[in-house]
Amino acid sequence: MRILVINPNTTASMTTKIGAAAKRIAAAGTEIIAVNPCSGPASIEGYYDEAISLAGLLQVIGEHPGCDAIVLACFDDSGLDAARCLADCPVVAIGEAAFHMASLLANKFSVVTTLARSVPAIEHNLHRYGLAARCARVRSSEVAVLDLEHAAGPARAKIDAEIRRAIEEDRAEAIVLGCAGMADLTASLSDQHGLPVLDGVACAVTLCEGLVRLGLKTSRLGGYAAPAKKDRKSA
Amino acid sequence: MRILVINPNTTASMTTKIGAAAKRIAAAGTEIIAVNPCSGPASIEGYYDEAISLAGLLQVIGEHPGCDAIVLACFDDSGLDAARCLADCPVVAIGEAAFHMASLLANKFSVVTTLARSVPAIEHNLHRYGLAARCARVRSSEVAVLDLEHAAGPARAKIDAEIRRAIEEDRAEAIVLGCAGMADLTASLSDQHGLPVLDGVACAVTLCEGLVRLGLKTSRLGGYAAPAKKDRKSA
Amino acid sequence: MRILVINPNTTASMTTKIGAAAKRIAAAGTEIIAVNPCSGPASIEGYYDEAISLAGLLQVIGEHPGCDAIVLACFDDSGLDAARCLADCPVVAIGEAAFHMASLLANKFSVVTTLARSVPAIEHNLHRYGLAARCARVRSSEVAVLDLEHAAGPARAKIDAEIRRAIEEDRAEAIVLGCAGMADLTASLSDQHGLPVLDGVACAVTLCEGLVRLGLKTSRLGGYAAPAKKDRKSA
Amino acid sequence: MRILVINPNTTASMTTKIGAAAKRIAAAGTEIIAVNPCSGPASIEGYYDEAISLAGLLQVIGEHPGCDAIVLACFDDSGLDAARCLADCPVVAIGEAAFHMASLLANKFSVVTTLARSVPAIEHNLHRYGLAARCARVRSSEVAVLDLEHAAGPARAKIDAEIRRAIEEDRAEAIVLGCAGMADLTASLSDQHGLPVLDGVACAVTLCEGLVRLGLKTSRLGGYAAPAKKDRKSA
Amino acid sequence: MRILVINPNTTASMTTKIGAAAKRIAAAGTEIIAVNPCSGPASIEGYYDEAISLAGLLQVIGEHPGCDAIVLACFDDSGLDAARCLADCPVVAIGEAAFHMASLLANKFSVVTTLARSVPAIEHNLHRYGLAARCARVRSSEVAVLDLEHAAGPARAKIDAEIRRAIEEDRAEAIVLGCAGMADLTASLSDQHGLPVLDGVACAVTLCEGLVRLGLKTSRLGGYAAPAKKDRKSA
Amino acid sequence: MRILVINPNTTASMTTKIGAAAKRIAAAGTEIIAVNPCSGPASIEGYYDEAISLAGLLQVIGEHPGCDAIVLACFDDSGLDAARCLADCPVVAIGEAAFHMASLLANKFSVVTTLARSVPAIEHNLHRYGLAARCARVRSSEVAVLDLEHAAGPARAKIDAEIRRAIEEDRAEAIVLGCAGMADLTASLSDQHGLPVLDGVACAVTLCEGLVRLGLKTSRLGGYAAPAKKDRKSA
Repeated sequence: MRILVINPNTTASMTTKIGAAAKRIAAAGTEIIAVNPCSGPASIEGYYDEAISLAGLLQVIGEHPGCDAIVLACFDDSGLDAARCLADCPVVAIGEAAFHMASLLANKFSVVTTLARSVPAIEHNLHRYGLAARCARVRSSEVAVLDLEHAAGPARAKIDAEIRRAIEEDRAEAIVLGCAGMADLTASLSDQHGLPVLDGVACAVTLCEGLVRLGLKTSRLGGYAAPAKKDRKSA
Repeated sequence: MRILVINPNTTASMTTKIGAAAKRIAAAGTEIIAVNPCSGPASIEGYYDEAISLAGLLQVIGEHPGCDAIVLACFDDSGLDAARCLADCPVVAIGEAAFHMASLLANKFSVVTTLARSVPAIEHNLHRYGLAARCARVRSSEVAVLDLEHAAGPARAKIDAEIRRAIEEDRAEAIVLGCAGMADLTASLSDQHGLPVLDGVACAVTLCEGLVRLGLKTSRLGGYAAPAKKDRKSA
Repeated sequence: MRILVINPNTTASMTTKIGAAAKRIAAAGTEIIAVNPCSGPASIEGYYDEAISLAGLLQVIGEHPGCDAIVLACFDDSGLDAARCLADCPVVAIGEAAFHMASLLANKFSVVTTLARSVPAIEHNLHRYGLAARCARVRSSEVAVLDLEHAAGPARAKIDAEIRRAIEEDRAEAIVLGCAGMADLTASLSDQHGLPVLDGVACAVTLCEGLVRLGLKTSRLGGYAAPAKKDRKSA
Repeated sequence: MRILVINPNTTASMTTKIGAAAKRIAAAGTEIIAVNPCSGPASIEGYYDEAISLAGLLQVIGEHPGCDAIVLACFDDSGLDAARCLADCPVVAIGEAAFHMASLLANKFSVVTTLARSVPAIEHNLHRYGLAARCARVRSSEVAVLDLEHAAGPARAKIDAEIRRAIEEDRAEAIVLGCAGMADLTASLSDQHGLPVLDGVACAVTLCEGLVRLGLKTSRLGGYAAPAKKDRKSA
Repeated sequence: MRILVINPNTTASMTTKIGAAAKRIAAAGTEIIAVNPCSGPASIEGYYDEAISLAGLLQVIGEHPGCDAIVLACFDDSGLDAARCLADCPVVAIGEAAFHMASLLANKFSVVTTLARSVPAIEHNLHRYGLAARCARVRSSEVAVLDLEHAAGPARAKIDAEIRRAIEEDRAEAIVLGCAGMADLTASLSDQHGLPVLDGVACAVTLCEGLVRLGLKTSRLGGYAAPAKKDRKSA
Repeated sequence: MRILVINPNTTASMTTKIGAAAKRIAAAGTEIIAVNPCSGPASIEGYYDEAISLAGLLQVIGEHPGCDAIVLACFDDSGLDAARCLADCPVVAIGEAAFHMASLLANKFSVVTTLARSVPAIEHNLHRYGLAARCARVRSSEVAVLDLEHAAGPARAKIDAEIRRAIEEDRAEAIVLGCAGMADLTASLSDQHGLPVLDGVACAVTLCEGLVRLGLKTSRLGGYAAPAKKDRKSA
């Protein structure tokens, strides 16, 4: 089984990190192909970066035919609907993956993401997926995405503080980490705080493996119909 | 006052039609600048076309500084969030404009759009805006966007049939036409069916004029903060 | 265009203030007629005052035929449904007007109103309009309506404090002022706190102007049908 | 125990009928005082009639101090909030009474009311009480309120037809009759259709008796605080 | 009228206490039969205890034919649906009873229950009944159920503290006590805190009396159909 | 990895069928242990059967320590919360499993289950999981659970008819089969009707495998805390 893991920003070091997280969890026999677009923003923080990353993201899908499943490795789940229309295989985004898996382990979870500007997009996704009622609160740690690349010291302290607040104030029973760059912190955070801590990349890889083994593909009835053939002017 | 009306597809005849609809309703002293991107899909039908149109849409905004307000003239409201981050002036999309205005005239409205594949995206928007409870049903007339350019005969009959069903089955008290290309049918449909029929382009122009006169701009706190300065690789 | 602006309480100085706010925003060519009933409560604070004001409010509408639109200038939006049944022209209440306009500028807004007793009625309206999910919290500043008539000193400080809490605790991206008497504070509060601050009177005037130019009227199908002719005993 | 049952319209024959329904169900020792205002509409059908009836309704409450509980016998539950502020005793409206009782007997119920114009107000109440999810559909039989006073022939057939549709199409497990004038049909309709059929007047009387025996009164914290003393101009 | 009040745990002293609370409120002529299963958990705290108590609870119902109504006296309302299928008479659980009655007295109420582990089950019930929007917050006082049997000193202080927080932070207008063992505190708590305080046992008894006098029984259409006859293996 | 698959009814032939479905999908290296309780109902159809099956279900969990994950193979998901409290490993029920997986493939799905009496319990679960908005309709085919054991002729025709209605009337983009006994029909139904058709047993097995590989367990904070040690009287 071949799973295409797309980091929709253009920071190659983050792609490497995400690919490593995916490989750690992948079953024997699953090949992980971690890629990023060659054009687009260096990180995706907020609605504008989301929109600007879509053309590159969809181009990557077009350039990798023959995959069995696709993981979209940006926690805003940007481009998910369009990717489902375009790809012939199942597509799972890391935000939705973590939300669904957390729902199997806890009555309510809280999300700890990076910047406040990303919170509305995540809340919007939760509403749309139907899982807003399962999420106690979307919290921002005010750690920039690319800072997660460097020494974890102050970033870790900020994330710890938000998790403590989520347990005390939100009565969260599980934590979803709201950024692909936080993937290597889950075990340590779970041990320290005593509750399940989920990373979307790992969740999405197992969901893709499941969908492929089940023989299930995106529905072609309704909203995810394949794109109609039409004139497209290119720049 | 200068309002930039963006048709996010690349069909110039539709831009002309939308611009004419905007000018018909604009107040004396309002200048309408109707434009479309030079690259992108010829029409926007479903999630994939939405995503593919965003880069062109945002480029148009960047090329027209100094406007007082922007209308996004695609009923899927694609790119609305990103445009709000990017632009210094208020941005109103035609779907949301029609939903808000219809809410001032009727307990419940139904939407009559073009193709079934567009229905989930519209339902998703309604949920997100909070107005899903005000919409009785999103109906598709199975008329393709570009067919609305030509003789209205069979297209009109299909739209009529859906409006009748909306009144009888949905108990709709108003109708929102779910495509910028239907703008010139409102008066005739309203007369025939005896209830308010709304076109998003006209609604959005008046809402923009109102926001400008009120001196209100998009909030910069939270989700609509201006895009962060960062490296962006271009293709 | 003639817009009837009804202050549903009997305090003439407040009617004058509301009328001035309406005139400041009205387009050239729009005539504002600001009136109040001759019987009813001196201010509307809570459900009982709302109910007691309705007969006077509806009488005022009956006495002013030939208007193009009506603004109901009480933030509880009391009498809105009945006024829509009675009037031949569009009717917009100031609460709903501010909620709809704020939804075009911010992912979430908070309301700052006068007294705690008014909060449930406002929350009830938000639910009903469908916009409850867009409102982070309805806050009361514990400033009485008629105190807003006098020196703004302590009242302003209380309103400032609630706006700060709305930004910090609610993550509000815009503020709706929940009382017609606060209309002249918007610009100053917006400058001080750095986010859009909306007054319902101004919002409602521009929405009425828009509806009139669009040629739209309240639907007569369903709930807003004109009152049935029947025996009515008068006291 | 004395329960004041207020028919908010001015049709005395309907007051008599409602009073009889209340007395049939009242416990030994409960005195029923059935009254109607001397001014107001002859029947309440839609939002305008609701608003016009409130002054008379509240006046009746003021004229009957010393009651132990009050039933508002109009299915739109108009004036309920204001009555709770004004009265020193519990107030129960017949719509809410029937909805709460039906929720104890069935997973979902449907409402069968009189005219289509009353449907939005009832839906609005259901939303507000929180019980919209328990109501499968609000149906109108197109029987006018005052026609229920006369021979039941054609009216009964129309109500039967709507109940059959509610069972088949809505999967309703119980029926709430949406008009005080239908009170004497419950047993017969329940026998014929094989499911619980509820009348709000009877439900409200038993709820009032329960609240009085429990020693519970309307909360004075928040929205139902007693009306503030203030100047009120009377016509 | 005979009402069977079932304490679903096996602690006889609590059954006595609950029976006394039921008798205090029962009308003249109502016989209260308070019982508990002979097998099952000593108290019900959380989902596991709920499940483990069901067989005993249903056996008690089978052993007491000929009752006019049944009260399920555990605040988690466990077994309510199954009991409705099994019993020939109305069944009311104490959680739902208190929620419905509180909705007649207050715009919003808060629940004060025993342990944090019970909170999700109560929230789940509120959602399902439709009354989640009427409940400001479910609070736990961290008092164990069986501790309520003993000296009230520290338990009372903890409950007082939660009620104060409910008024200040949640803007609750009424309090529902979330445990059958708190029944004798209502009057004292109501006096002290100045708002309605409801106990589910008393509420459920009056609702049962009402349903019996109304001649209403659980619907047999749909989800509460009597159990199908089938092979059942017994241990 | 060892997954315990529990058929909570006592029909051994159905356990065999469910076990076979689980083994077909299980990864190499996953051991499936399919069991059923020795006491309880022969099939689970409605709320009463659910309740009566719980003791046997929980006893089976206690008798199989050392499993890595547990699948509850009844579409009502009965006992899920209690099982999560009791078991040391992740527990996934087949209803929730299918709902979550369908949400990754379709904007909306419909459920086709056996009997009308099971519909409210399924709707209740969907509400609680948060996924009600993703489910267009829960349909019953009026095929009894145990009839699915025999010749598929008439049962298949009834299921086909409901799937056609789900596509046409509900605009469902995927179908969830609402009974463990329908597991071997998915591929054939999917081919015939041209959309994804999901069986909960297969979905739950892959979700369990994912959770185990992710190292995630049920949260012990809040509602799923391990059962408190207390006196339990056994019959």
